[in-house]
Amino acid sequence: MYELTIELNANSKRPLYEQIYEHIKTEIRKGRLSYGEKLPSTRALSKHLEVSRSTVELAYEQLLSEGYLESEPCRGYFVAQIEELYQLTKVKQMVRVEESDKKAFYRFDFTPNGVDLNSFPYNVWRKLSKDILIDDRTELFRSGDSQGEYGFRNAICNYLYQARGVRCTPEQIVVGAGSDYILMLLSVILDKTHRIAFEDPTYKQAYRVLSSMGYETVSVPVDKNGMRVNILEKEDADIAYVTPSHQYPTGIVMPMKRRLELLRWANAKERRYIIEDDYDSEFRYKGKPIPALQGYDSLEKVIYLGTFSKSIAPAIRLSYMVLPIPLLEEFREGFRFIHSTVSKVDQLIVQKFIEEGYYERHLNKTRALYKSRHDILIDALKPLLSRCKISGEHAGVHLLLRFKDDSSEADLIEKAKKAGICVYGMSQYRITKKREPATILLGYANMPEEDIKEAVADLISCWS
Amino acid sequence: MYELTIELNANSKRPLYEQIYEHIKTEIRKGRLSYGEKLPSTRALSKHLEVSRSTVELAYEQLLSEGYLESEPCRGYFVAQIEELYQLTKVKQMVRVEESDKKAFYRFDFTPNGVDLNSFPYNVWRKLSKDILIDDRTELFRSGDSQGEYGFRNAICNYLYQARGVRCTPEQIVVGAGSDYILMLLSVILDKTHRIAFEDPTYKQAYRVLSSMGYETVSVPVDKNGMRVNILEKEDADIAYVTPSHQYPTGIVMPMKRRLELLRWANAKERRYIIEDDYDSEFRYKGKPIPALQGYDSLEKVIYLGTFSKSIAPAIRLSYMVLPIPLLEEFREGFRFIHSTVSKVDQLIVQKFIEEGYYERHLNKTRALYKSRHDILIDALKPLLSRCKISGEHAGVHLLLRFKDDSSEADLIEKAKKAGICVYGMSQYRITKKREPATILLGYANMPEEDIKEAVADLISCWS
Repeated sequence: MYELTIELNANSKRPLYEQIYEHIKTEIRKGRLSYGEKLPSTRALSKHLEVSRSTVELAYEQLLSEGYLESEPCRGYFVAQIEELYQLTKVKQMVRVEESDKKAFYRFDFTPNGVDLNSFPYNVWRKLSKDILIDDRTELFRSGDSQGEYGFRNAICNYLYQARGVRCTPEQIVVGAGSDYILMLLSVILDKTHRIAFEDPTYKQAYRVLSSMGYETVSVPVDKNGMRVNILEKEDADIAYVTPSHQYPTGIVMPMKRRLELLRWANAKERRYIIEDDYDSEFRYKGKPIPALQGYDSLEKVIYLGTFSKSIAPAIRLSYMVLPIPLLEEFREGFRFIHSTVSKVDQLIVQKFIEEGYYERHLNKTRALYKSRHDILIDALKPLLSRCKISGEHAGVHLLLRFKDDSSEADLIEKAKKAGICVYGMSQYRITKKREPATILLGYANMPEEDIKEAVADLISCWS
Repeated sequence: MYELTIELNANSKRPLYEQIYEHIKTEIRKGRLSYGEKLPSTRALSKHLEVSRSTVELAYEQLLSEGYLESEPCRGYFVAQIEELYQLTKVKQMVRVEESDKKAFYRFDFTPNGVDLNSFPYNVWRKLSKDILIDDRTELFRSGDSQGEYGFRNAICNYLYQARGVRCTPEQIVVGAGSDYILMLLSVILDKTHRIAFEDPTYKQAYRVLSSMGYETVSVPVDKNGMRVNILEKEDADIAYVTPSHQYPTGIVMPMKRRLELLRWANAKERRYIIEDDYDSEFRYKGKPIPALQGYDSLEKVIYLGTFSKSIAPAIRLSYMVLPIPLLEEFREGFRFIHSTVSKVDQLIVQKFIEEGYYERHLNKTRALYKSRHDILIDALKPLLSRCKISGEHAGVHLLLRFKDDSSEADLIEKAKKAGICVYGMSQYRITKKREPATILLGYANMPEEDIKEAVADLISCWS
């Protein structure tokens, strides 16, 4: 029999049984203890090492459960055949070939897709995840509902009704890991022969995703009321992708009259649908919220899209769609087998976040924060008002600066870049290129107030 | 000025400042404190309520930050206009119309897709999520790499090399929320004109997902060595979807000769690819692991698919693919803009789970557990060996019972059902229906040893 001499360290953070387990495992792996060899009894080893017998038993149990030892009744413990066991050695991290680092280059970034992560409710999040991981156990890690957990969909449903005037049941909601995925899933349900009309300018990400799924697309210009329905009428499109609450990127809020025109267009033919992307309706700084278009839809024509990526954090991969009943039926009959892309843990965290009132508080807090950044930005931009007009303010997390003189957009962006400031030009949101006055987008969600003041002062001087 | 009389409860779990905050918020919401009304100074209120001034300040700050109050320098605190604020009331949970409950009906379920969740490492998981949520803060909630975090991909890469003989760099790995999503993403990269050949019988979920993405499919029969490459040659297919490590559901391990034939088939034409689904290669009970087909691929023909849903838990929505270089380039050029579907938190948890040795231990533990269930099941089935033959054992988490007499599969399933036992028939995995001896699948991953004994005894008596 092998004489095990293990140097135990009573002061180590590692429990003694772990040290014994680790030692024997290494001996077996290195072949110093070989297949079939008998180990000392727990009694003998505990005496030899001067530890309690239960300590040795715990170590042996661990080794048994992981397949390093085998026990034979009345005979004792033997080294098992370990050929089939996993033996993973740690390999060092490969050095990554980094792509050019935007962050390092710019001092300030007026991205319109920013989110203030300093106001992310870390403590609440940590508390909720802790509670959930303690509470639920096995049920939590079992395969879930392919549409998303019912309780979570119920919480979304209540929120949508109260905050957005969306009328639906939890049955109509499908949860997915991010808006891109939701569009991919939607395109599995919808026939590929549909032609999709996009607002021009538009949210290019959705345009790219749907194009890459194989859809033909059409672009329809936007006027001060949003997508021009009279032009849409003339196009051979049967789906209209719109952002009525806050047109991206112009910030236009579609008035009721245009909304009704759009619904009338959809109602005129059977295959027509409206995709209402309500991506950042959470933030408005003036007046009452405008209910979602979906709330006025009596003929099951509107597919409503929403997300928590803007209102909580981009890395929370959580979006959802509300399907009209006929599409819901098609989904349930044909595609319900596709598994959910969101872990139950994440769904439960956000469900509790909503139900326990944290979401309401978080929305009001970030709204107040963004409003004050919005006000400061508008104030700082005053010296530019002789040269440009501000639009798209009062909602969302960016505004537009439309130049009245003949400034060139590319030139303005380049000058800002030289000053270390990243600003965005309207032309990158256009589907059809168009000659129009230079228009710059300034997002402020991720810009502290001091940064806004400094960056705008620098912009004014580099643009003068 | 409004006289605030708040009943404070010093013994409540809620801090005093929260009680004051809650009271004033309710007063404002109910309109008892209206727009423009002045609030008592913090000094006056703290005296009135007999609490410290900082307690009142904390409450006022919270109300300010959420937009219920406004402060005017040197004048004090006033009720803000709250029309724009979110006011979500709790709505009670809707009662769900439950679908017929399979769990309630069956006493035992021999599902081949089970995972033993009692051996899920809850404590480690909780510890890792706690550590991560403390450590990283804002970076964790920022938008991540669309292929998955580099460190995580690096950990997968090391694991795949050591455990599966897969040769790749982290650059080639794309992480996604579950295998269905990975297939959806793959089908965005691959041209829709490909025709996909499936093994028959096969993993129907993949077949359904790829069919619903618009691919034409062909079925190729399986013999004792796996997909019959000589028949594949005659079909007009250019992608072969195979499970060489452990054919699903027959359990066949494809021998080297057949693997090389398959690679030769793929190498013969430019557009051809092999999708190697290595879904449950983690569990083998006899002999050394067979390296993945990908490891022998020198011409960038194999798309390797792997998942943590089988080896950790189904609700962990984490799968990945290893792309051959030409496809990787197409992905990077055309589709890298599609955001990742997995939250950074989840990626980091699994990364640490792998790097800190927990995954290795977990794999060895579940392997030992499944092996003992496997042994007990085989032992319990002995009385049936005169009527049927066992196959597909020694790996995975299910085996097959092939009846030598003229038993009908439907009849066997129905009799088991009457005894409260759910078993699965081979015919549901077939693409082309075929007359063949009744074959029953028995999965054991989710069956405790006592249940296996009892359920098999009942099966034997109801089938006799």
